[in-house]
Amino acid sequence: MGRWEPNARQRLAEAALQLYGEQGYEQTTVAQIARQAGLTERTFFRHYADKREVLFAGSPLQELFVTAVAEAPPDAALLDVIGAGLDAASDMFRGRHAYALRRQAVVDAHPELRERELIKLAALATALAGALRQRGVPEPTATLTAETAVAVFKVGFERWIRAAEETDMAPLMRGLLDELGRVAAGN
Amino acid sequence: MGRWEPNARQRLAEAALQLYGEQGYEQTTVAQIARQAGLTERTFFRHYADKREVLFAGSPLQELFVTAVAEAPPDAALLDVIGAGLDAASDMFRGRHAYALRRQAVVDAHPELRERELIKLAALATALAGALRQRGVPEPTATLTAETAVAVFKVGFERWIRAAEETDMAPLMRGLLDELGRVAAGN
Repeated sequence: MGRWEPNARQRLAEAALQLYGEQGYEQTTVAQIARQAGLTERTFFRHYADKREVLFAGSPLQELFVTAVAEAPPDAALLDVIGAGLDAASDMFRGRHAYALRRQAVVDAHPELRERELIKLAALATALAGALRQRGVPEPTATLTAETAVAVFKVGFERWIRAAEETDMAPLMRGLLDELGRVAAGN
Repeated sequence: MGRWEPNARQRLAEAALQLYGEQGYEQTTVAQIARQAGLTERTFFRHYADKREVLFAGSPLQELFVTAVAEAPPDAALLDVIGAGLDAASDMFRGRHAYALRRQAVVDAHPELRERELIKLAALATALAGALRQRGVPEPTATLTAETAVAVFKVGFERWIRAAEETDMAPLMRGLLDELGRVAAGN
């Protein structure tokens, strides 16, 4: 390891998002990001493979979501298992609304980043389906429930991020699960 | 228009899929596809922008799905509106199992084609949400229902395509809608 670089990873991510927002994603170089963060390019590459990875690498979303699903009580109803996963996913965004908003603006403005985001959500659904099967949920219920959980997460995240100020994400997700129940019940 | 070329579009698509399967997607050129179909490169480019477009262009899936949702009876329950959309989507795949299976094998083997497919499904969800809002469905119900409908379609399509022989897709989709109802009701 090099010299002491407190929070290098987070500082690089903040610097990158600032520059992406100010001068555009394409126009921003790794050298500029490192300089803005007061770090070296070498340090950048210790943390991220390239400037795209700053936006995607190391998000614990999938791990948190899947772990919560795996560790829900064995006798929990399927909807509560999903609710536990959504709670865990929501927790990780607490206090990060401003950052998430800036990140999303960059992602939404670039089709290749949007594609990468969709790939990550598809991978999340696959991992959730696996965790549900491990709990003994049969197919096609496991895959259907996993895909539906990701659908709820997508809609909830979009609503959370669009709000003018940060709100608590978990109740928003729970409200969507309730709404899904109403739609599926034909009410 | 050039000389009479019966079913040129479909012949080109069949030829492309055959070559993609036999010799690989990367290794296949437009010239080879045209030759295999007994047509010219010029004809190919009248129908498709490039060899990727053969796999994606001109699918009426979104139009059929959205039109069925838009034209469902005004007083239909939301779940039945989605069911009508899934029925219309299912209809277009009738008799096309072998073709769809070969197409999917190529798409699944190439991350950039898989990304394109996910983009198309995301666009489908956006279009469905718009059609539901047009029907007077408020947000977030419209977007949540649209994303859920696409989740059901994804799961149902995957099950349909994995079956050894072609089965009727619509009952499969309806079965998943019922299953979703059971999950959402906590049963």
